[in-house]
Amino acid sequence: MPRERLVVIGGVAAGMSAASRARKLNPELEIIVLEKGRHVSVGACGLPYYLSGEISDWKELIAYDAEFFREKRGIDVRLEHEATAVVPGRKTVHALERGTRETALHYDKLVIATGGAPAESLPGADAVNVFTCNDLPGTMRLREFIEKEKPQRAVIVGSGYIGLEVADAFVQRGLQVTVLERSDALLEGIEPEIAGRVEAELLEHGVELIKGSAANEIECAEERSFASLRMTHSENRMTNVEKRALAVRHGANGRHEADLVLLATGIVPRVALAESAGIQLGPTGAIAVDERMLTSVNSIYAAGDCTEVRNLVTGKPSYFPLGTTANKQGRVAGENAGGGNATFPGVVGTLVTKVFALEVAKTGLSLQQARANGFQPDSVTLTSTSRAQYFHGKPILLKLVWERSSGRVLGCQMAGQEGVAKRIDVAAMALQARLTVEDLLHADLSYAPPFAPVWEAILIAAHEAQKKLRG
Amino acid sequence: MPRERLVVIGGVAAGMSAASRARKLNPELEIIVLEKGRHVSVGACGLPYYLSGEISDWKELIAYDAEFFREKRGIDVRLEHEATAVVPGRKTVHALERGTRETALHYDKLVIATGGAPAESLPGADAVNVFTCNDLPGTMRLREFIEKEKPQRAVIVGSGYIGLEVADAFVQRGLQVTVLERSDALLEGIEPEIAGRVEAELLEHGVELIKGSAANEIECAEERSFASLRMTHSENRMTNVEKRALAVRHGANGRHEADLVLLATGIVPRVALAESAGIQLGPTGAIAVDERMLTSVNSIYAAGDCTEVRNLVTGKPSYFPLGTTANKQGRVAGENAGGGNATFPGVVGTLVTKVFALEVAKTGLSLQQARANGFQPDSVTLTSTSRAQYFHGKPILLKLVWERSSGRVLGCQMAGQEGVAKRIDVAAMALQARLTVEDLLHADLSYAPPFAPVWEAILIAAHEAQKKLRG
Repeated sequence: MPRERLVVIGGVAAGMSAASRARKLNPELEIIVLEKGRHVSVGACGLPYYLSGEISDWKELIAYDAEFFREKRGIDVRLEHEATAVVPGRKTVHALERGTRETALHYDKLVIATGGAPAESLPGADAVNVFTCNDLPGTMRLREFIEKEKPQRAVIVGSGYIGLEVADAFVQRGLQVTVLERSDALLEGIEPEIAGRVEAELLEHGVELIKGSAANEIECAEERSFASLRMTHSENRMTNVEKRALAVRHGANGRHEADLVLLATGIVPRVALAESAGIQLGPTGAIAVDERMLTSVNSIYAAGDCTEVRNLVTGKPSYFPLGTTANKQGRVAGENAGGGNATFPGVVGTLVTKVFALEVAKTGLSLQQARANGFQPDSVTLTSTSRAQYFHGKPILLKLVWERSSGRVLGCQMAGQEGVAKRIDVAAMALQARLTVEDLLHADLSYAPPFAPVWEAILIAAHEAQKKLRG
Repeated sequence: MPRERLVVIGGVAAGMSAASRARKLNPELEIIVLEKGRHVSVGACGLPYYLSGEISDWKELIAYDAEFFREKRGIDVRLEHEATAVVPGRKTVHALERGTRETALHYDKLVIATGGAPAESLPGADAVNVFTCNDLPGTMRLREFIEKEKPQRAVIVGSGYIGLEVADAFVQRGLQVTVLERSDALLEGIEPEIAGRVEAELLEHGVELIKGSAANEIECAEERSFASLRMTHSENRMTNVEKRALAVRHGANGRHEADLVLLATGIVPRVALAESAGIQLGPTGAIAVDERMLTSVNSIYAAGDCTEVRNLVTGKPSYFPLGTTANKQGRVAGENAGGGNATFPGVVGTLVTKVFALEVAKTGLSLQQARANGFQPDSVTLTSTSRAQYFHGKPILLKLVWERSSGRVLGCQMAGQEGVAKRIDVAAMALQARLTVEDLLHADLSYAPPFAPVWEAILIAAHEAQKKLRG
């Protein structure tokens, strides 16, 4: 009897988690991973830090290489294999090896982990000095460009957390940075009070932020490619003419010159393969999955940035393309594909990012998001410190959102130079457990002068919330 | 009609919280605080850092002084007033002003916040070079002694968190330190794996730890007091002979010489006043209070280190003399004494301390405590990191304890050089919300490479726990 075969499409966070989990659970299973790129298990969240040079070698971003998975885990990792079609009726995946050789593989179980792709493009985005920071090859090209061509002015299109993390990296590299944001606020879903703090941090580090002005096009010049200079006359005639970005046009008549342009307009799920296989998408446009990460098609699971995830605060499907979620979903998909039984109920929407010296974190819903989701929310914003006053604590700005009728905690956001990143987890736990502000004010949080003030910001906020609740 | 009067006995954390809360709630109330010392609102948790010199001026430990409470909050703070008796039948408190003048005060509501006292003494503890680090005057004397007399060898009796924090301070002061612990383990209630890490840290900083050897007596010499040297012959005859500790005798025949001895054998509730007023004590020996912080006697509340507190994990009364709890209890006592209505359900037992470069934290029950409380527990111990591997994360050692039958989380302990203090709060929230390990493994905790690894130690532990639960 032939071994049962699991095929995993995509070898980054979700895909390799699925393959690894299935292997641990089921030593007999044949596991094949199809990865279109040249590496698996890339720590994509580290890319901005590779760009800045804080991570010097890209190899540090590879948790385990393909060899490791082949030899230590018996997983047949096939690099430079791009899945081109899934035929559920025949349980077959078609793939293209190095862009040329077609292969077809039977599967018994399939995990789709095709990830996300840059959300939108612009006219001129194909110029040689226009980049994204979504994958390793693109980011390596960008770093090489910076190191070799020493650009001076960068325009970043988009002020999500990737855009801001890259702005930080660019400033470290000595670039003059402008960030363009089409909406009125940076970091989508961030509270205005927290956004104000982030804007001040950008300003302090010389980053120009232009809000409410959508990028329309990248203005380019055509020039002979750099490589052509070293060619002979006869070769030169064959050389492609190279497109080079000169400026980004935005809003009614904005124009910013740039030696390099970064597109950071967010991530959309890569769903073409799933969609063409007849797999149902959800209301967010990402692949719909149940708690076991099963898609609408028998024996096909999906995980990571190509899927949607339940928002446990609203109860609705949502799209949160984050590394931790991808790993958890991948693990659950792998467990179920491998014959086990696991569930992933969803997320509360926790996010942290570092913008220069500022830690910015959120979980759950902002006040505006709470309203948009049918809650009648209320909020309080205040400042406490990261340590005891006499231990040189740094300010932590915190906003807490709750439901008026029930007191249920709906969201929390924080900003500060120290101690924010892991403090948000208290609120994340409160959201997961559906605690009220009354519960929260009794939270038995750790205290010692070098680490915390006696009254944590979130405890003070819970007290203020309770006062408001009591009218 | 005379104003209603609230009398608060004790002006540190619980007492001043109670007075302040009552004032906010009830601007009409007359509020008198009787404090036997010369300061109110002393941040006692900062005393070891004042000792080390990390906090240079003791005034930094005073959040607000008596003047502030009198002028800004209209609270009649009476320093150097020691309450000597409470007569519930007549609603009267008797006090001694500066040890001489007796006064009697009527109260309508009373809050007892008499705090805790050093747990035990030893023969010879009255020597001039034997100290505690429980209050400001004693700690000031100790710092002065170190700075003036430049002692070289210190023996610390007791290895609780105060003992270890002071060991750290002594080493910073250049002292050679020996810590004596009567039991087989330091930091009562700590898991052996975590204790091992703490012991290694002590060793690395040259602190000698002797376990399983109880201190029996402080060996003293009698000598003329230092002050006598400057006196005339006739005065000298009047001078007291001073007792000076030379060594601590311990165990069967242990003896350690010391230029100074610190007693850090823990805290016991100061209950003499309450007890003599007929107020009921609980099974822990501390004052029994209900959720509203009311004692067994009408109109008398109690809060802080003199009371017991419900352990929300065991459901039993327990004794956790900690600053955060004192503040919360004080606040609730003040709210109720001031005519409001608040409750304090209890604590899960969260504690963090810093031992040299090591952060050590616990919440809930240790494996042994869980067994002793009738649970059938299981546990897992593992190491993860404080940040992404490629971001130079430091190891975090974590032990998770859960109930076998239900999977309910019962306790968690951690040690590491970074990121431990606030990570324990995730476990504290899980305990408060009575989450299971299954809930815990879905926790949506913040992730970004500079702040956390993709898989937090507690998530890995939850996975391991689930595996064990499934057999």
